[in-house]
Amino acid sequence: MVPSPIVVAAAAVFLISLSSATLAHGGGGSGRRFVRSYDVDSPCKEMKFYLHDIQYDNSNSTTNSTSAAITKPTALATAVSSPGYFFGKMVVFNDPMTEGNSLPPSLDETAESVRAQGLYFYDKKDGYNTWIAFSVVFNSTVHGHGTLNVLGANPNSDTKDLTVVGGTGDFFMSRGIVTLCGDEVEGWL
Amino acid sequence: MVPSPIVVAAAAVFLISLSSATLAHGGGGSGRRFVRSYDVDSPCKEMKFYLHDIQYDNSNSTTNSTSAAITKPTALATAVSSPGYFFGKMVVFNDPMTEGNSLPPSLDETAESVRAQGLYFYDKKDGYNTWIAFSVVFNSTVHGHGTLNVLGANPNSDTKDLTVVGGTGDFFMSRGIVTLCGDEVEGWL
Amino acid sequence: MVPSPIVVAAAAVFLISLSSATLAHGGGGSGRRFVRSYDVDSPCKEMKFYLHDIQYDNSNSTTNSTSAAITKPTALATAVSSPGYFFGKMVVFNDPMTEGNSLPPSLDETAESVRAQGLYFYDKKDGYNTWIAFSVVFNSTVHGHGTLNVLGANPNSDTKDLTVVGGTGDFFMSRGIVTLCGDEVEGWL
Repeated sequence: MVPSPIVVAAAAVFLISLSSATLAHGGGGSGRRFVRSYDVDSPCKEMKFYLHDIQYDNSNSTTNSTSAAITKPTALATAVSSPGYFFGKMVVFNDPMTEGNSLPPSLDETAESVRAQGLYFYDKKDGYNTWIAFSVVFNSTVHGHGTLNVLGANPNSDTKDLTVVGGTGDFFMSRGIVTLCGDEVEGWL
Repeated sequence: MVPSPIVVAAAAVFLISLSSATLAHGGGGSGRRFVRSYDVDSPCKEMKFYLHDIQYDNSNSTTNSTSAAITKPTALATAVSSPGYFFGKMVVFNDPMTEGNSLPPSLDETAESVRAQGLYFYDKKDGYNTWIAFSVVFNSTVHGHGTLNVLGANPNSDTKDLTVVGGTGDFFMSRGIVTLCGDEVEGWL
Repeated sequence: MVPSPIVVAAAAVFLISLSSATLAHGGGGSGRRFVRSYDVDSPCKEMKFYLHDIQYDNSNSTTNSTSAAITKPTALATAVSSPGYFFGKMVVFNDPMTEGNSLPPSLDETAESVRAQGLYFYDKKDGYNTWIAFSVVFNSTVHGHGTLNVLGANPNSDTKDLTVVGGTGDFFMSRGIVTLCGDEVEGWL
């Protein structure tokens, strides 16, 4: 196996700005009709998390790994450079998210947790660029219970915005933005 | 092949609660501007379906099968238990949906149908947990014509909520919740 | 390899109708609360693009290719016909989008570009039918900067509607419809 520049362990800062779910009476005279309002200047909810992704690399312990590739790069992966940019490689992950930048004491799922569950895949011939879709699954007395569903293009830039396309439970009907930025990369394979 | 606990045929109850798409005049004086309102106490539309998923298992007839795995489980699939929880296995499906819990007379696509078309994949080392994304494709005189697009985390719990992230045709601009619950599992492979 | 009817190069017309993101004061007396309004009769933004997809076919040059299959068709692919309809085949793409129907002078990414980045997979036994999810990535002085996230069922019909489930940057909080229609297919593999 040729060593290739793929992240083995990475932490990303994850900043969610949610649109307000506040309800207000509409202007009409229809009584029980409610209008969903967006308090644009001050979104009602912002959260920040560190997301820990530890990719299985055949030598790493499966105990610590939180993600694994499910497809191999295609012939386009080495179209521009060698060893290339992994065009077509798809990864499934189930990553812990924490308020601080340290790994949680245990990588096992615990009663109290925030996790990101989903997939990403590489889709560029001349650089690192992925498309990502996942759910943030909340099971936390602090942050609530439910899910936020997030997806979008994830280019190799300092910060990148994804969209919150929906939510459930305490995050019912949420919409908004997630800003991802890299924090630390520990080794390549 | 070692027998492993994967669903061969399953029916799931599928309950959609859609936000109202009712339009109301906004409070401003802008005349032709309309405001999208959510009638929160009584969502305008609820539907309930049974979703029939028959997974191809190498011996099952392809005639009856409505889904098939497109990737194999990864090394993380057996990280915790053996034979494991299929971490990384991805399945593509095109499942009929019916109002009652019986399979439709024919599994072929017919002029009148409601179908769920999409994918799911396993993403947990210590339990059955999937992430799912699909379109509900309506071609029905009763339920209308168009699609509802649905996605989210699908844990191994009694009920789980997914989000309706959009719609087309008769379901234009829809948002809401889908609640999935298992109904019956017939056999494992 | 048996020749099979898969698109090698295709251009599709891509028409986006976005809901208005115009903000208007709500009817209540809450002062700084704003209401998101949808100007239903005249959506604020319509765009039309040609999307160029050139699939890698093992003989085609990787220089021109903009997409590649990452999984093979499953056993259900030939359930109804031979050589079948590719059930389970998944493709990752990064396609240039242009205002006219000609390919851009260079297929390399340039500073000024509109691109569609995402995946689709075949999900039908008795016809060509895909499910598709992608981001339209704008880096253009004309069209703006940011992304639109799009997904939905993509049947083999003349036109098909997908949903815009969110946006970032200049397309913050967008929702709407994308109508795809085939324009030209140049060869099969």
